[in-house]
Amino acid sequence: MATTGTSATGGMNGGQPESNVDVLIIGAGPAGIMAAAWMARMGLKARIIDKRSTKVFCGQADGLNARSLEMLDSLGFGDRAWKEANHMIEICLWNPDENGIIRRSDRVPDTPVGLSRLQQSTLHQGRIERFFLDNIKKYSNGTIQVERGVLPESLEIEQSKVEDQGAYPVTVKLRFLTEEEAAPKQLGGSKVSDGLFRSNLFQEADEDALIKQTYERAGAGETVHAKYVIGCDGARSWTRTTLGFELEGEATDMIWGVMDVIPFTDFPDIRCRCAIHSATHGSLMSIPRENNLVRLYIQLVEVKPDASGRADRSKITPELIFNAAKRILDPYKIDYEVCDWWTAYQIGQRVGTNFDAHQRVFLAGDAVHTHSPKAGQGMNISMQDCYNLGWKLGLVCRGIAKPSILKTYQSERRRIARDLIEFDNRFARLFSGRPAKDILDAEGVSMDEFKEAFVQGNMFACGLSVNYGPSNLVLKPGDAGEQGDGSAVAPPAVTMSEADFDRKQALATGIPVGMCFNSFQVLNQSDGRPWQFQKRLPADGRFRVVLFAGNIHNTQQKKRVEAFCAKLDAPSSFLHRVVGNDGRDGLHSVVEILTIHSAKRWDTELLRDFPEVLRPFRRATGWSYDKVYVDDVSYHEGFGDAYTNYGVDKKRGCVVIVRPDQYVAWVGDLEDFDEVQAYFEGCLVLKEYTTGLHPYVAADVPEGAATTDGISIAVR
Amino acid sequence: MATTGTSATGGMNGGQPESNVDVLIIGAGPAGIMAAAWMARMGLKARIIDKRSTKVFCGQADGLNARSLEMLDSLGFGDRAWKEANHMIEICLWNPDENGIIRRSDRVPDTPVGLSRLQQSTLHQGRIERFFLDNIKKYSNGTIQVERGVLPESLEIEQSKVEDQGAYPVTVKLRFLTEEEAAPKQLGGSKVSDGLFRSNLFQEADEDALIKQTYERAGAGETVHAKYVIGCDGARSWTRTTLGFELEGEATDMIWGVMDVIPFTDFPDIRCRCAIHSATHGSLMSIPRENNLVRLYIQLVEVKPDASGRADRSKITPELIFNAAKRILDPYKIDYEVCDWWTAYQIGQRVGTNFDAHQRVFLAGDAVHTHSPKAGQGMNISMQDCYNLGWKLGLVCRGIAKPSILKTYQSERRRIARDLIEFDNRFARLFSGRPAKDILDAEGVSMDEFKEAFVQGNMFACGLSVNYGPSNLVLKPGDAGEQGDGSAVAPPAVTMSEADFDRKQALATGIPVGMCFNSFQVLNQSDGRPWQFQKRLPADGRFRVVLFAGNIHNTQQKKRVEAFCAKLDAPSSFLHRVVGNDGRDGLHSVVEILTIHSAKRWDTELLRDFPEVLRPFRRATGWSYDKVYVDDVSYHEGFGDAYTNYGVDKKRGCVVIVRPDQYVAWVGDLEDFDEVQAYFEGCLVLKEYTTGLHPYVAADVPEGAATTDGISIAVR
Repeated sequence: MATTGTSATGGMNGGQPESNVDVLIIGAGPAGIMAAAWMARMGLKARIIDKRSTKVFCGQADGLNARSLEMLDSLGFGDRAWKEANHMIEICLWNPDENGIIRRSDRVPDTPVGLSRLQQSTLHQGRIERFFLDNIKKYSNGTIQVERGVLPESLEIEQSKVEDQGAYPVTVKLRFLTEEEAAPKQLGGSKVSDGLFRSNLFQEADEDALIKQTYERAGAGETVHAKYVIGCDGARSWTRTTLGFELEGEATDMIWGVMDVIPFTDFPDIRCRCAIHSATHGSLMSIPRENNLVRLYIQLVEVKPDASGRADRSKITPELIFNAAKRILDPYKIDYEVCDWWTAYQIGQRVGTNFDAHQRVFLAGDAVHTHSPKAGQGMNISMQDCYNLGWKLGLVCRGIAKPSILKTYQSERRRIARDLIEFDNRFARLFSGRPAKDILDAEGVSMDEFKEAFVQGNMFACGLSVNYGPSNLVLKPGDAGEQGDGSAVAPPAVTMSEADFDRKQALATGIPVGMCFNSFQVLNQSDGRPWQFQKRLPADGRFRVVLFAGNIHNTQQKKRVEAFCAKLDAPSSFLHRVVGNDGRDGLHSVVEILTIHSAKRWDTELLRDFPEVLRPFRRATGWSYDKVYVDDVSYHEGFGDAYTNYGVDKKRGCVVIVRPDQYVAWVGDLEDFDEVQAYFEGCLVLKEYTTGLHPYVAADVPEGAATTDGISIAVR
Repeated sequence: MATTGTSATGGMNGGQPESNVDVLIIGAGPAGIMAAAWMARMGLKARIIDKRSTKVFCGQADGLNARSLEMLDSLGFGDRAWKEANHMIEICLWNPDENGIIRRSDRVPDTPVGLSRLQQSTLHQGRIERFFLDNIKKYSNGTIQVERGVLPESLEIEQSKVEDQGAYPVTVKLRFLTEEEAAPKQLGGSKVSDGLFRSNLFQEADEDALIKQTYERAGAGETVHAKYVIGCDGARSWTRTTLGFELEGEATDMIWGVMDVIPFTDFPDIRCRCAIHSATHGSLMSIPRENNLVRLYIQLVEVKPDASGRADRSKITPELIFNAAKRILDPYKIDYEVCDWWTAYQIGQRVGTNFDAHQRVFLAGDAVHTHSPKAGQGMNISMQDCYNLGWKLGLVCRGIAKPSILKTYQSERRRIARDLIEFDNRFARLFSGRPAKDILDAEGVSMDEFKEAFVQGNMFACGLSVNYGPSNLVLKPGDAGEQGDGSAVAPPAVTMSEADFDRKQALATGIPVGMCFNSFQVLNQSDGRPWQFQKRLPADGRFRVVLFAGNIHNTQQKKRVEAFCAKLDAPSSFLHRVVGNDGRDGLHSVVEILTIHSAKRWDTELLRDFPEVLRPFRRATGWSYDKVYVDDVSYHEGFGDAYTNYGVDKKRGCVVIVRPDQYVAWVGDLEDFDEVQAYFEGCLVLKEYTTGLHPYVAADVPEGAATTDGISIAVR
């Protein structure tokens, strides 16, 4: 375990303790803790530091989109969030009628129907962080804990070592603050806790001064040598500044207030998410939350930035913000006794030029992109950044994957950040603009255009429209260089024409390559239990090959399945040559093979009908009963109709490669094993294949251990 | 908080510390912790003691039936059990074919379809206890914790005080054991942990000797004065013996072994629950569990009781048991490396003559009924006993309910115990018997009869066939005295003819009076979120009146709803006269009013369309948005069709009273308010109605507090 102070691998550097760590995470917000969750899950030696002394107790970002909930679920605690959260089911759009009075013009589902088994939700960020911290503690056995009140002082990359996988090329000096130094100051001056200290309207306390203060105390410093560093330190990122990277973009003149209140109101849709455009008083978005709270995003048309581009903060009070809300909602009444939190911000959209330095130091979350909180994307996109990065770092650190996959972090996530900003720009303009009075009112915002943008944007906002481009992690046609903003992303292992790709994609029209694997219900072959298939793709760092085996009782199809499995189980197969598996017992430990067949469950038997590689035998735990599924009707939960929903032919089937983050890497035919092999050769480190002997027969099983052959099974 | 040692209310008794407690629970098995969960939930001062030093680490009962899962869910942790458990979906029956070879003769769902949203599951008892302990800690703020290594020494009931609600008529002296004294001894002699020390084949260590040992230590005793005591101390219950109560019934000569193993087998249904009848080698039941474990219940045809009626324990080893399993499963092979736990038992069925003494000391679980573990009913019935008792004790202790309701514990639960034993007797006979060779084989067991019994029994076993008889807690016709085994159960508050009852029951054919309220999906009117309606009936000690309001937009129906609500909200109504509510703010705190209407959600508005009593205003938290539901189509989760499933007319509606344990107490018409009033007068303590003033207007709202009138709401 890495702790502050001298560790086993550490020493002293000018009187300062030194230590080594695989990954140092700077900042314990949503991006940082997501990175730490992966590190814990993948058994890495990692540390996570934060300059503040406390976790978040109220307010801040709290929207969890459908994809974020899927991610939390893959980590094992989606259920906790789902149970406590307020589920947002419906959005109501309110616009002025011909008399300028607001009225409900539309109702739409908050999560587009059919895209996910989970729906947009809201829950206080502090609770979400709690779930993360519990999860990190559980999987790291308590070795990874957020170290609070720790400031980074310097960061250096030893460039001669960046290609050396055994080296620790990044050196970060840390300073330890006292409790008092690390506490955020309340700036708003009101009794209600405010978030102004994080708002872009205000400047932070001087960190240099804080660091100097620490020099007066002995033992307040440490030098950490890291293989990798992730800067998750927010919009004013110290890591980004230290690397000399810029954010591109600028602030707008749109200023919004935010309040979390328990409203008393006759506004009928107060428990739905509402976008309310008043005729002349600005706009308001209401987001219902847990415990009768409602978050109000309120446009402050009265407050304008001065010549410097910044608004005068002294004008902004809860009273000013709430009065603006009252005017927008008129003729409905609104009042409150309890205000949990409030803040204000100036909309600005910026994206970083670089997401990493030498694939050794990475930036994530607000450190590389900022946008308007109203779109509810801040926390989601930040978590999703590190959900993308975490497993890649983990697999490279453990020597399982090639370091070249780390280039896909920028190529995949910078595009998402740019898309977000484009969406946010358009949305903010439409939402902050005055509604058009009629079709001739060219300066006003057309409410039809707003609705269209809203619904489109919603698709984006739920996080399920992400589509990653070609690289050695996604086998699709196209220019990997372009995808990577000109950076040298490794190309796909197989060069594919658009026509080839379309032909393969047609085998599984509901499983688009580059996008997230959607979830439908299947049954476990052995016990008939219904599973949302996505539950079988947990975030444990494994790639998965999903074999849609079709009708296994058709002689021709069975031969196809057997031929595919023979190649999969051949000694030259990637499956036997990945780093880190443990012979037969660990056969599925790096790449798991899952099967979904389309025959009737009652006609089918696991041991009789499926080749062993699909349900391997392990010492002590016996046959694997959790690998083979069937698209059949359940007793209690209806029929998932998975083949139809995934767009896969029930006779022919197909094969799908799924990445550890549940994104689809490749779709192909049962005869396309060579492409599967090429995919893994392109991204994983494979042991050399030097002997014709099956590794299992050869050496991997200790003598005397129970093996398949150790039990005489007469399969009938 | 009650702790061992002198408490604030305590003193010294002959040098021994004394303390007072509302409820003392003896035994921390499934029955005891269920009782403690209610005590925590209802804010009582309670203690729970157990003579053993440790909780259960493996083995023991582990089947959770559907009703038990619903109970755990009502307490707030059904999801934890559901997530970790192995769900048992299917039962396979295996019988000898014409050649005497076992073959699968049937497949049936383990939980009958449509009865519950949850299905039979298996999970190690230690995990279930963990969830309980976490829940008890949370709701009691850590004040209720299992005190281990504590033995009761004497119990006395001061009969002159049993009618005095303020008194502590039960005195129990406790002795504190050392860690070593409290540890169970392993008797089986094998390295694998066994459960023989709890088996009925072996005698316990001498408790009197243990108690004497404690006299040698100072401070090893305490005198507790309790309002109520619950004896949950197992089949050899000290509490029962001390009260001088008997179990009636006897042991059979059927001896079974139990093993938890990870099997290596080609038996195709090893992950389903199987009942396997071999031609000549006896029977076996397999119960799949979590982590690839399977529990095997194995008939030991070789082992017979001796003249004393007890089997020779020295013969019983894991090898003997497993060899019997091998013979039963032949020609399939079975082997294992890991055995987690094993035990053996002799089937015996007994039921207690008395379930309570003066309604001050109660017996629950194995202390009043024993049966064969194989039916998977032990833990379930034990928990269900205390799920029935806990809220009654809680409401009486808090002065909310009349003490007479405590008589229904015996009347309701003794019948269930007797039904269980009748079922178990029949089932054990059929399952232990040799299968009939053909129709002429009169001594053999007919496999058709077995299947029929199995499927019927399964209905019983899932816990959803319980139907409580008439009393002041269940308004139905019939003889309450007969229901109560001749004990003086209070009769229903309304005398009803069978015809009257049938007419009322016909208003909600899917909500049978006396049975558990089934769950279907409804939507929250305010935010459209789908809810399983049972999730809105949590175990918080509240009765509920469920108003099926029908089509609220029909003028005639709206008048009926308004008339019902006017009576409900009148100052003379039980709702305003229960003990423990807090004026308007606590209007629903003892009896919650929930509404399900059948109009379209989009046409309906909470504040405009429903009388205030259905969605009361509370200081600080505003209107109640969690009281009114609608039977409408959801965006993502389909249509619950609740009116149809509950058998309620969509125009006319009805009213249902639900007890705090989710059992249905009464069904009637919107015009039957007088019966609702009579029901609550019959079981709750109501404040006298002395003034014509509405209590809300009169006195309950402190001056200056925000009230409905404090905000001018123009409902349009």
